[in-house]
Amino acid sequence: MSPGLERPVRVALDAMGGDEGLAAAVEGAARLTTEDRPVQVLLVGDEPQLSAALAQQRYDPAWLQLVHAHDWVRQDEKPHEALERRPQASIHVAADLVKQGHADALVSAGNTGCTVLAASQRFERLPGIRRAALASVYPTEQRHGERGDPFALMLDVGATLNASAEDLVGFAVMGSAYARIISDNPAPRVALLSNGTEPTKGTPAIIAAHQVLAGMRSVNFAGNVEGLDIPRGSVDVIVTEGFLGNVVLKMLEGVSEVVVDLARDAYARKFLYRMGLTMLSQGIRQLRTMTDWKQYGGAPLLGLDHVVIKAHGRSNARAFRNAVKVAAKAVDRDLAGQIRAGMSPPGAGQPPSSP
Amino acid sequence: MSPGLERPVRVALDAMGGDEGLAAAVEGAARLTTEDRPVQVLLVGDEPQLSAALAQQRYDPAWLQLVHAHDWVRQDEKPHEALERRPQASIHVAADLVKQGHADALVSAGNTGCTVLAASQRFERLPGIRRAALASVYPTEQRHGERGDPFALMLDVGATLNASAEDLVGFAVMGSAYARIISDNPAPRVALLSNGTEPTKGTPAIIAAHQVLAGMRSVNFAGNVEGLDIPRGSVDVIVTEGFLGNVVLKMLEGVSEVVVDLARDAYARKFLYRMGLTMLSQGIRQLRTMTDWKQYGGAPLLGLDHVVIKAHGRSNARAFRNAVKVAAKAVDRDLAGQIRAGMSPPGAGQPPSSP
Repeated sequence: MSPGLERPVRVALDAMGGDEGLAAAVEGAARLTTEDRPVQVLLVGDEPQLSAALAQQRYDPAWLQLVHAHDWVRQDEKPHEALERRPQASIHVAADLVKQGHADALVSAGNTGCTVLAASQRFERLPGIRRAALASVYPTEQRHGERGDPFALMLDVGATLNASAEDLVGFAVMGSAYARIISDNPAPRVALLSNGTEPTKGTPAIIAAHQVLAGMRSVNFAGNVEGLDIPRGSVDVIVTEGFLGNVVLKMLEGVSEVVVDLARDAYARKFLYRMGLTMLSQGIRQLRTMTDWKQYGGAPLLGLDHVVIKAHGRSNARAFRNAVKVAAKAVDRDLAGQIRAGMSPPGAGQPPSSP
Repeated sequence: MSPGLERPVRVALDAMGGDEGLAAAVEGAARLTTEDRPVQVLLVGDEPQLSAALAQQRYDPAWLQLVHAHDWVRQDEKPHEALERRPQASIHVAADLVKQGHADALVSAGNTGCTVLAASQRFERLPGIRRAALASVYPTEQRHGERGDPFALMLDVGATLNASAEDLVGFAVMGSAYARIISDNPAPRVALLSNGTEPTKGTPAIIAAHQVLAGMRSVNFAGNVEGLDIPRGSVDVIVTEGFLGNVVLKMLEGVSEVVVDLARDAYARKFLYRMGLTMLSQGIRQLRTMTDWKQYGGAPLLGLDHVVIKAHGRSNARAFRNAVKVAAKAVDRDLAGQIRAGMSPPGAGQPPSSP
């Protein structure tokens, strides 16, 4: 799956179905074509609309190709029904491009459930992975990895209810591989989210996963963390089941909404800076960064043999550009191979059976 | 349990084992004796230490009585072992005062697990309540009830793993009764925390509890809420199982730690106010309020036939005063009777059996 250096990475970008229309996806793709290290983008969607949006942009046509799709899934449609009712939908077309080897990775702006389902229907789960997981970056107080990344990774934030110990171990391996590749973090600290730091705290699945992870060499396991550690960012990767991950992630969104009015006031921040109240100004700027985190790339779907990134519904051009670049980086550095290696490291423990 | 107006409420306050020593508990109790509507406080702990601390305070001895206990549980001890090993511990003495009718309510500064266990060993569960729950107030953007209370209530934040539908329904009734009494909110809006607002979202227990609550007249049921709604405060009472409640609550603590340095800067806020940047100053003050929420009373243990409040380990004198006043209010307004009535309302649905 990992192309040699001689060939640029090709990303199929489903531009349809985002909350803000396709203009941002098209602009993000156009920008990429003029950068130093281009990515080959296959822009999938309604051709007349794509062409009209593209006409507004400066771009290098050598690096951008339109692929027409008659139809697309709307944000509020139910995944199973929508994918059946719309066999010509852009997400089908984009996922098929990857399946058939015309593209190396899938990036989607549309309906999350449909993206996950379309990918799961076509791509293979990696050995030992029972369930794919949706991961999300989120802002933390502490920085991560060699680049001082202000974001940590949490997974699953998707649909897993009642994750088994085996699932949680898989999530830990996948999150570790992704953080290593994307944040240039050679040994990301990975922890299980629980209601106490002791190995005996949590659900039976958490307790069993803790035991297995403590014996695995392929994961830099930091034990259990508590709710406190989520905003602090004490670790680089937080592992949890999808229900809890969903609640926690939406709660972080809610917290950022509460401070957004304050943090948005750019005039006030500038004024404070001039008055010498630098500490206060910086604090507010930091809050603002935290409220803007949805603009930084997308959520990877981990555990399949192809790279899949779900861009946030409200992504701007910069976020789409970032999502495509992240996908290309994951292909270049062989994310699937890294996960495979992590699941069966020499001399390490085997994943457990379900508790 | 509810005394007539002729007799003041008597609260047994276990002053031992808090993170900050007993001085704050003693000062809080002393303050109460000089207020307009006094509460009879039975201050339980090591008599020499209590006397020494009390000598530093102005108080009315008619309203304050010392009850000696030879021993006390330390913060890091395991509840079961500690209660067995220390039969003379202050929490035993204080809970016995309530059990034997010498006091109407129990307030404890010590080890949370021991407080819950000592109370559960002595007091009866109310009819239909299978598990007691620890509830916590937390700060929200929106205000609640007639007094414009800036706090909402969440339960369970204690130890329940795998809460059944029956448990969740009980939590909803108990939370509703508590919010009605303490926040002067005649019909508090109660919701289940889930990963989507539709009645079909969540674990089997949540889905089943949703159905029952939708048919109960004694609860003003607002359906499911998501993580977003926690900091917003869209509802007055959020119902969840203890594992998730614990993670969410600790996460809120973590978020407030992240903004605390900014919000603490009183000089900066005053300066902003003078400069006319009122909006910004108010925003920061609001953040400060949110970071100080642990100082506002304590966490009630709900579902037993006596009022039990766990004061936060780091409570100051004002927080202890508030915790005792809240306990007295709950006794005065017959919290247990309100929960009993809510569990068997005329013409309403019965709690379901476990799914």
